Amino acid sequence: MLNVYLSGEIHTDWRDQVIDGAQGLDITFNGPVTDHAASDDCGAAILGPEDSKYWHDHKGAMVNAIRTRKGIEEADVVVVRFGDKYKQWNAAFDAGYAAALGKSIIVLSPPEHQHALKEVHAAALGVAEQPRQVVDILRYVLTGELPQ
Amino acid sequence: MLNVYLSGEIHTDWRDQVIDGAQGLDITFNGPVTDHAASDDCGAAILGPEDSKYWHDHKGAMVNAIRTRKGIEEADVVVVRFGDKYKQWNAAFDAGYAAALGKSIIVLSPPEHQHALKEVHAAALGVAEQPRQVVDILRYVLTGELPQ
Amino acid sequence: MLNVYLSGEIHTDWRDQVIDGAQGLDITFNGPVTDHAASDDCGAAILGPEDSKYWHDHKGAMVNAIRTRKGIEEADVVVVRFGDKYKQWNAAFDAGYAAALGKSIIVLSPPEHQHALKEVHAAALGVAEQPRQVVDILRYVLTGELPQ
Amino acid sequence: MLNVYLSGEIHTDWRDQVIDGAQGLDITFNGPVTDHAASDDCGAAILGPEDSKYWHDHKGAMVNAIRTRKGIEEADVVVVRFGDKYKQWNAAFDAGYAAALGKSIIVLSPPEHQHALKEVHAAALGVAEQPRQVVDILRYVLTGELPQ
Amino acid sequence: MLNVYLSGEIHTDWRDQVIDGAQGLDITFNGPVTDHAASDDCGAAILGPEDSKYWHDHKGAMVNAIRTRKGIEEADVVVVRFGDKYKQWNAAFDAGYAAALGKSIIVLSPPEHQHALKEVHAAALGVAEQPRQVVDILRYVLTGELPQ
Amino acid sequence: MLNVYLSGEIHTDWRDQVIDGAQGLDITFNGPVTDHAASDDCGAAILGPEDSKYWHDHKGAMVNAIRTRKGIEEADVVVVRFGDKYKQWNAAFDAGYAAALGKSIIVLSPPEHQHALKEVHAAALGVAEQPRQVVDILRYVLTGELPQ
Amino acid sequence: MLNVYLSGEIHTDWRDQVIDGAQGLDITFNGPVTDHAASDDCGAAILGPEDSKYWHDHKGAMVNAIRTRKGIEEADVVVVRFGDKYKQWNAAFDAGYAAALGKSIIVLSPPEHQHALKEVHAAALGVAEQPRQVVDILRYVLTGELPQ
Amino acid sequence: MLNVYLSGEIHTDWRDQVIDGAQGLDITFNGPVTDHAASDDCGAAILGPEDSKYWHDHKGAMVNAIRTRKGIEEADVVVVRFGDKYKQWNAAFDAGYAAALGKSIIVLSPPEHQHALKEVHAAALGVAEQPRQVVDILRYVLTGELPQ
Repeated sequence: MLNVYLSGEIHTDWRDQVIDGAQGLDITFNGPVTDHAASDDCGAAILGPEDSKYWHDHKGAMVNAIRTRKGIEEADVVVVRFGDKYKQWNAAFDAGYAAALGKSIIVLSPPEHQHALKEVHAAALGVAEQPRQVVDILRYVLTGELPQ
Repeated sequence: MLNVYLSGEIHTDWRDQVIDGAQGLDITFNGPVTDHAASDDCGAAILGPEDSKYWHDHKGAMVNAIRTRKGIEEADVVVVRFGDKYKQWNAAFDAGYAAALGKSIIVLSPPEHQHALKEVHAAALGVAEQPRQVVDILRYVLTGELPQ
Repeated sequence: MLNVYLSGEIHTDWRDQVIDGAQGLDITFNGPVTDHAASDDCGAAILGPEDSKYWHDHKGAMVNAIRTRKGIEEADVVVVRFGDKYKQWNAAFDAGYAAALGKSIIVLSPPEHQHALKEVHAAALGVAEQPRQVVDILRYVLTGELPQ
Repeated sequence: MLNVYLSGEIHTDWRDQVIDGAQGLDITFNGPVTDHAASDDCGAAILGPEDSKYWHDHKGAMVNAIRTRKGIEEADVVVVRFGDKYKQWNAAFDAGYAAALGKSIIVLSPPEHQHALKEVHAAALGVAEQPRQVVDILRYVLTGELPQ
Repeated sequence: MLNVYLSGEIHTDWRDQVIDGAQGLDITFNGPVTDHAASDDCGAAILGPEDSKYWHDHKGAMVNAIRTRKGIEEADVVVVRFGDKYKQWNAAFDAGYAAALGKSIIVLSPPEHQHALKEVHAAALGVAEQPRQVVDILRYVLTGELPQ
Repeated sequence: MLNVYLSGEIHTDWRDQVIDGAQGLDITFNGPVTDHAASDDCGAAILGPEDSKYWHDHKGAMVNAIRTRKGIEEADVVVVRFGDKYKQWNAAFDAGYAAALGKSIIVLSPPEHQHALKEVHAAALGVAEQPRQVVDILRYVLTGELPQ
Repeated sequence: MLNVYLSGEIHTDWRDQVIDGAQGLDITFNGPVTDHAASDDCGAAILGPEDSKYWHDHKGAMVNAIRTRKGIEEADVVVVRFGDKYKQWNAAFDAGYAAALGKSIIVLSPPEHQHALKEVHAAALGVAEQPRQVVDILRYVLTGELPQ
Repeated sequence: MLNVYLSGEIHTDWRDQVIDGAQGLDITFNGPVTDHAASDDCGAAILGPEDSKYWHDHKGAMVNAIRTRKGIEEADVVVVRFGDKYKQWNAAFDAGYAAALGKSIIVLSPPEHQHALKEVHAAALGVAEQPRQVVDILRYVLTGELPQ
């Protein structure tokens, strides 16, 4: 059985592609809350509003950390997706967190980010460009079967 | 004595400002190689050239990792600087790495990056905008003295 | 699945409120023995009486530690409740113990204790005033759903 | 050589008594910032003021944590002093933090707090009432000499 | 659920008494191989005979260590029984091993061994004289119920 | 229950002999992908071809590491088989990796390799020459029964 | 440089023999307090008398643990001496403690204790009968020189 | 300052080349005993002869492990040299041991061993063919200077 954490980009359907592709494999997938508005507002919505944008964001990031830390710490494999938009520092942060814990890391990133991601790639055991390749790695790791 | 690792941006003189400001304090500073060209090319220059840009970068990132991992692992405090340019995923990666090791983190970042850095800030014990504030924290931690 | 340890105050029904509110969520709750008399006397009752009040208490505290350490060490989330009465040093001790183990901590405390708890709050990922808010955090962490 | 962290009460001269009594012994002492006002205000004074008392305190507690965590993590022995005033939850928090790290703990507390501190005492290797007894333990541990 | 390792004396029925007394409690018990002859000879019987008594014993002790290390490392509670006969250094060794791993230790020993076991007792959370007391502790830890 | 990782030689049927012999025992077996061609080519087949033999091999070794590290880290017992052919440095590497993690190691090797394997043997709790002996150790560890 | 902890028997001069024999080698030696009376009474002498022999011994064992735990945890090599007299369970306890921490252990014991010590021996990297042999191992480990 | 352990081949002067080349750099070098005969015989020479070649070798390997484990555990960088002769399983074992401890590994190996070493290379941050390249990496890591 593999426990796989899917970190990073939340604006495309890459998680669905990985999870769908992996059907039939003995894998448990976890990841962050992917509802962008809920993720931003969870702290204030639950624990009370803040006047300051900084503390609004801070409270939300702290609550989300309960989920993401557990997800990464329990994972065998952490897949970190870098997309086309936004700063995505949280994705790189997750990669560093996973690396320090000795997790197996797969980075899923487009070729144009190659140079900027070289330190993150250097901590990975696989660098893929397509969700399908992530599935192929997971299948191979579990079953020894290569894609046809 | 404090061991402080200065991670992130290598194109401004913020490290000099912190180190100069901290003169007289019992602090050992470490950080990455800040010669951009040497940092990019060290792998190929020492271990032999690569046809592929990916592996050229990879070899360099691996060699640099010898220095950065030791620097972070031995640090009491990791200061992570986010500047105005570039993707800076290596800075966020270092922050995640430091967080997983339980290091005390100070983030040095401009206000406009606040929202994008909220997960990184949530892992920090201090978020500063000016190098002088980093020095003030280090002085206070060592001596208990606040700035006048 | 979340493993949640409910530490602190044993004289009000806050644990019941949290557990009831979390019905339907995939959570295992643990906590200390909440029968005050049994908790005080367990050491002497099982291992033999002591003339000295100190050793009577000591034997009980040691036996209770078997349960509390396991509970905290296996928890994903440690909720620490500070109430209105007693010194509650055991609650703060549990919070420190959980913090050193890197556990996600939620503090449940009344506003009037804010200043005295600032070091404990600084180690928490969420500070709530009502048991309902604890439930809301746990639900969000597991399902991504915010309270209506 | 012993590295000893002196945690807890900052309103009496117990630290001075311990340090003076230990003169001539090969001990390095550390502890929190004991200037109460500086300790409360350090976060806002360095990183900028907050409208909310909660965040004012929070920023200060985070900055102080840089010092206290390092102090406890590097200590061989953590002495935790409970006095007559205040809630002192930070002292109990430090004791829990030290216990989880496997540190040798000495508690220095008055007899009237015995029952309320029983869980903290149960994690200690010595429970003293007088600073002189703390010195006597440290001397014995280093030299094998008992008080005359 | 508790995982309990029963270490020490193999010539009396104390393990049976504990296991029988704990019927109905959610406990998994483990322990060493208690067939004395098999335990002494397992190395040579499986891996081949030795001319030297030392290596005969050594091979057996190594094979037994596969079982005992796993048993202790997976245990929540390690009960260490000292009886009337033999040197029982393996029991004290197990206690030290468990202590360094931070396990909850219960020592089961007769009063006449008190002084000689004081260092072992100091590492324990409970010191019992009767198997029944061990059962009572385990029941209390799991259910909060004291013996009638 | 035992979790056993079968490392090393992939050209003979020793794994089948161990697994068959252990039928009826409560053991989960894991090991590397034993399809030699798939194991060599997995990196390039999934993540894209390389011009350089070095990077072709490197990509494959990285992907295989996802499986082997998990296998070793989760194992109670790591059996390392050295056969007659090839350099088998990966087997010795796995043994070193397992030793540093404190795993129980059984080496399965022919007598002619004794001197060259003395450092590896010194890290093992059992050194066998026949797969049957490995089964006998596993049975004894689980059940206490010696071979007839 | 080697840090060596000398555990066990305190009634013969074996420590002096080892330390004298190792003169000129870059070794720091540590060990327990070897003044038997001081070691037994330190708890009560410093922290106050006890009516019960058990708690008298307990307080002393706790205070001594401050020294012995630090000594073992900082050691590269733990030498454990078993002599002719007493139960010596503290020596075996130290050996188990050191083994769980992954320390290099040398046992110094007479041949007649071989069978009773087989589990302790199995955790050692060297089993010596004479203090001179301990010195010879330490010299070889530091300098590569064998005795003439 | 760097602490570098030089593991592997003991029949050529590669250690001297690395150490000479690194003169002037702030590096402490350690490594195994390189006197082949002493290394083979140290166990029997110090602790007494064995009839069996297996136990003769075993005793020596155990004594050598005191030095090599300390050397690897304290190293920042482990250089593992594979030469032309012998099985060199101890070198691969050291590499695996270092990898599991998260050490930075540099492999020094001839091109003809590339395929056989691919798993070891995959755990390294640098793969060199010449001792001079090892020196160049160490100088770069310490000073940021590349070779001319």
